[in-house]
Amino acid sequence: MQVRKRILDEAAKQFLSYGIRNITMDDIAVSLGISKRTVYEKFKNKTELVFYCLQELTKHQLIASKAIINKSPNVIDSISCLMQEGIKMLNSINPVFFSDLKKFYPEIAETVYNENVKTREEFTYQLLRRGIDEGIFREDINIKIVAKLFHEQINVISDEKMFPPEEYNFSEVYRNLVINFMRGISTSKGISIIEETII
Amino acid sequence: MQVRKRILDEAAKQFLSYGIRNITMDDIAVSLGISKRTVYEKFKNKTELVFYCLQELTKHQLIASKAIINKSPNVIDSISCLMQEGIKMLNSINPVFFSDLKKFYPEIAETVYNENVKTREEFTYQLLRRGIDEGIFREDINIKIVAKLFHEQINVISDEKMFPPEEYNFSEVYRNLVINFMRGISTSKGISIIEETII
Repeated sequence: MQVRKRILDEAAKQFLSYGIRNITMDDIAVSLGISKRTVYEKFKNKTELVFYCLQELTKHQLIASKAIINKSPNVIDSISCLMQEGIKMLNSINPVFFSDLKKFYPEIAETVYNENVKTREEFTYQLLRRGIDEGIFREDINIKIVAKLFHEQINVISDEKMFPPEEYNFSEVYRNLVINFMRGISTSKGISIIEETII
Repeated sequence: MQVRKRILDEAAKQFLSYGIRNITMDDIAVSLGISKRTVYEKFKNKTELVFYCLQELTKHQLIASKAIINKSPNVIDSISCLMQEGIKMLNSINPVFFSDLKKFYPEIAETVYNENVKTREEFTYQLLRRGIDEGIFREDINIKIVAKLFHEQINVISDEKMFPPEEYNFSEVYRNLVINFMRGISTSKGISIIEETII
């Protein structure tokens, strides 16, 4: 594997486990058994490393999401699997990673988020379209508005000021949102599939 | 009617029709045929007038909402009427009122909003509770989370940065949100009532 890719993978692993602030360029070099200089040859500073790391994580997440969708028998199964994977992933990440990102690298978080707005919207659009074609989602929904509302809701629940973790369990909020959202746009056939699929 | 109340009513009427910035304390005095001094005796400056005006409008809106609910045969009819009244009200207000409020009196808007958070949450809580008791909403919904999600969605769609008016029709976004939200938490009995009630 290329050195650059190895550094990115190791940095991602460590950032997600221990937060961003706790990990130095040196820590990553030591873990990989390479010199600090090699790390700096590939990434001029930690900010650049964090940027490419986040870009890589986002890309991976999208590839994983597409793989889930491609092997699902129907759109409810797709969304249900995406939801379970989403909860599993969030539970595996140290919350310090998100708070560090928000506190110390807000511009990076925003840039990478904005880079992918179109892709994410297109992704949701296709998912809703497929649901309609499968007779699971209602034909009369306004796909553009519904997709946008869904994304904005996900953003809202990710905001700790709106849903403080000491008061709300994130997984439960997320589950409530996704299930009620799907039911809200489903036909009666869709609702039956939801009730069979989601435990 | 007391002078203070007459000033508040007139100010509200004019602010909602022409925006806040366009209207002076003098305009209000002239419309009521009273002296500017009388207006200043009741409200020490325009900021104070705007504050009490917004407080009054919010109070009225809540009273009107409660009246709607009390005469509704079921919770779907309540929400449907609240939605129609909401759309009608928003269409009757000059958008400049909202932009002036956000631009020139953001602290007032926030203070009055925060004063009523608890009341609004309690209101939604009671509505959801009633829906469950009527067999219209599912018993397994998490009322606290659902009420919070609903309020945060309303806030998001009111944000022109998220849903720019040149790209999204507010009434249509609002309708999509409310109808899909209700369907999302309904039993099959609830969905039948929604389909009969909402045109």
